[in-house]
Amino acid sequence: MSAGPARVLAALRRAGDRPLTGVDLSRAHGVSRTQVWKDVETLRARGYRIEASAGDGYRLLGAPDRLYPDEIEAGLETRWLGRSLHYLDETDSTNRVAAELAREGAPHGAAVIAEGQTAGRGRLGRRFHSPPYENLYVSIVLRPTLSVAQAPAWILASAVGVADAVAAGLGRDDAVEIKWPNDVLIDGLKAAGILMELGAEATQVAWMVLGIGVNLNVDPAGFPEEFRARATSLADRRGERVDRAAFTRALFGHLESVLDSCAKQGFRGIIPRFEARFHMRDRRVSLREVDGAVHEGRVLGIDPDGALLLEVKGTARRFLAGDVTLSGSES
Amino acid sequence: MSAGPARVLAALRRAGDRPLTGVDLSRAHGVSRTQVWKDVETLRARGYRIEASAGDGYRLLGAPDRLYPDEIEAGLETRWLGRSLHYLDETDSTNRVAAELAREGAPHGAAVIAEGQTAGRGRLGRRFHSPPYENLYVSIVLRPTLSVAQAPAWILASAVGVADAVAAGLGRDDAVEIKWPNDVLIDGLKAAGILMELGAEATQVAWMVLGIGVNLNVDPAGFPEEFRARATSLADRRGERVDRAAFTRALFGHLESVLDSCAKQGFRGIIPRFEARFHMRDRRVSLREVDGAVHEGRVLGIDPDGALLLEVKGTARRFLAGDVTLSGSES
Repeated sequence: MSAGPARVLAALRRAGDRPLTGVDLSRAHGVSRTQVWKDVETLRARGYRIEASAGDGYRLLGAPDRLYPDEIEAGLETRWLGRSLHYLDETDSTNRVAAELAREGAPHGAAVIAEGQTAGRGRLGRRFHSPPYENLYVSIVLRPTLSVAQAPAWILASAVGVADAVAAGLGRDDAVEIKWPNDVLIDGLKAAGILMELGAEATQVAWMVLGIGVNLNVDPAGFPEEFRARATSLADRRGERVDRAAFTRALFGHLESVLDSCAKQGFRGIIPRFEARFHMRDRRVSLREVDGAVHEGRVLGIDPDGALLLEVKGTARRFLAGDVTLSGSES
Repeated sequence: MSAGPARVLAALRRAGDRPLTGVDLSRAHGVSRTQVWKDVETLRARGYRIEASAGDGYRLLGAPDRLYPDEIEAGLETRWLGRSLHYLDETDSTNRVAAELAREGAPHGAAVIAEGQTAGRGRLGRRFHSPPYENLYVSIVLRPTLSVAQAPAWILASAVGVADAVAAGLGRDDAVEIKWPNDVLIDGLKAAGILMELGAEATQVAWMVLGIGVNLNVDPAGFPEEFRARATSLADRRGERVDRAAFTRALFGHLESVLDSCAKQGFRGIIPRFEARFHMRDRRVSLREVDGAVHEGRVLGIDPDGALLLEVKGTARRFLAGDVTLSGSES
């Protein structure tokens, strides 16, 4: 948002219930009362409800349900994550935008948020259902000191951060689990997914982009047929709408914390947190590898590289990637 | 190139020294003689030297020194690499363009070639010196069946392909070596470099872009001060200019071959070829890790994941990434 309306908004927020006159605002910011009036109109056009009474002045009654940087920055407690925010009403893909910013030198933690995506993609090229103004679609630029071979562990670590944020938003910690490698489920239904892009100079990561989609307020009844039985949203499981800006701040906080740990100790230090969210240990699953080969086995756990360990026909085997389903289940 | 000029060009190429009349050409393609004349003018504007004599007709005397798709496709023997070609006179970065094409679904082997790059980058963010019309800047879209952790081996395998193409173009096999992880040297001077970007769905690679820059005809005397003592070009070492289109075809062939092997057998099958080009075994080097830590040691080799093995203070150690210099050298 341009400086004028942003300053007026910040002043109204600080004032809370106390009305601020146009004179107060114009003096505080060294601008004319006409400019203050224009800034208030700009804010109203963006959906801010601002009461104006002739004698009292202006009061902020409500903010729009939009993920404007001003909405997210007010109360954001992270050190680096989301400190540079880019907002788009609609884009083809937040990952594409974030990758361009990364190539141009965007800092560690820069985030791109879009209200809607026209070409959002899920795993294996599946189309990601991205209705506007209901959910969170965010892509985060990271500049970790990392080799490419260590990158998968960072995807898994970020799944822990997303799961923690979803659990906090839901208020039922046990209901939230991670489906290896990167889906977050509530009551067994998919609520969030993570994609990654990276740029490497030789075998070193130069930049990484985490693309995170979380179903917040969307009504699963409107999902396309193929998702309906297997997906959900935070609001649907909680029974009330989610404050999307507050959720975004919480997500940034959880992610910053887990990624800082990962940078310090490597994924090894995250494994207990991952396994606490990973309810698949000892369950029988079938894993389909990228080349189509299918392996049935019992889940033994996750190793320090983030690989899935399965006992297949009495032998422990290690899988770096693949699509896991519970044996006898469609999910 | 649009269909008309491309067809005229192909016909003139096939005819070789034999002149083709405007009537021949207009009949063969079912277009007017005026259209043939326009197509010839288009080709001339692109730098093709076409002789026209009233009685005899048209003859192709020479092609411009440009990496037009038509120039590369004529004689290209690959199955998949370079079969979809995108040509740009100038771009900020061929990797950026290729990554966008990859996201939009470009096929395995699609290639983006630019005559010049305004924002070409080398390792560790160093600016890559990219003078136009002299060298080769190409980015190739790959869609391997691979986990992210296996991606570094593909970068190393592609270095083998680049080194083989450089050696073939030079005609002195022994002079060409790979500096782990991804530089190709002639007589110890840098002639080519490789960057990679990838998109992942969870821990699986969805697409990969290899960005390859090869110094072909550039005069090292014009390099910026900081490169001059350590870089060279194929023409400089060979003493004559390189046919850039022919080099590009050869590069595509060598790369396709080594990447096909990598897809079939993994990097393990490429190690002997990598080690034959890797003249560092038993030499003392210092390796600077991404976090700044420096290790002095003796090179033991490369492992199946593409990691560098060093003997440091009597212990074998494995490094996934880093910047290697010969001990006591600046290179």
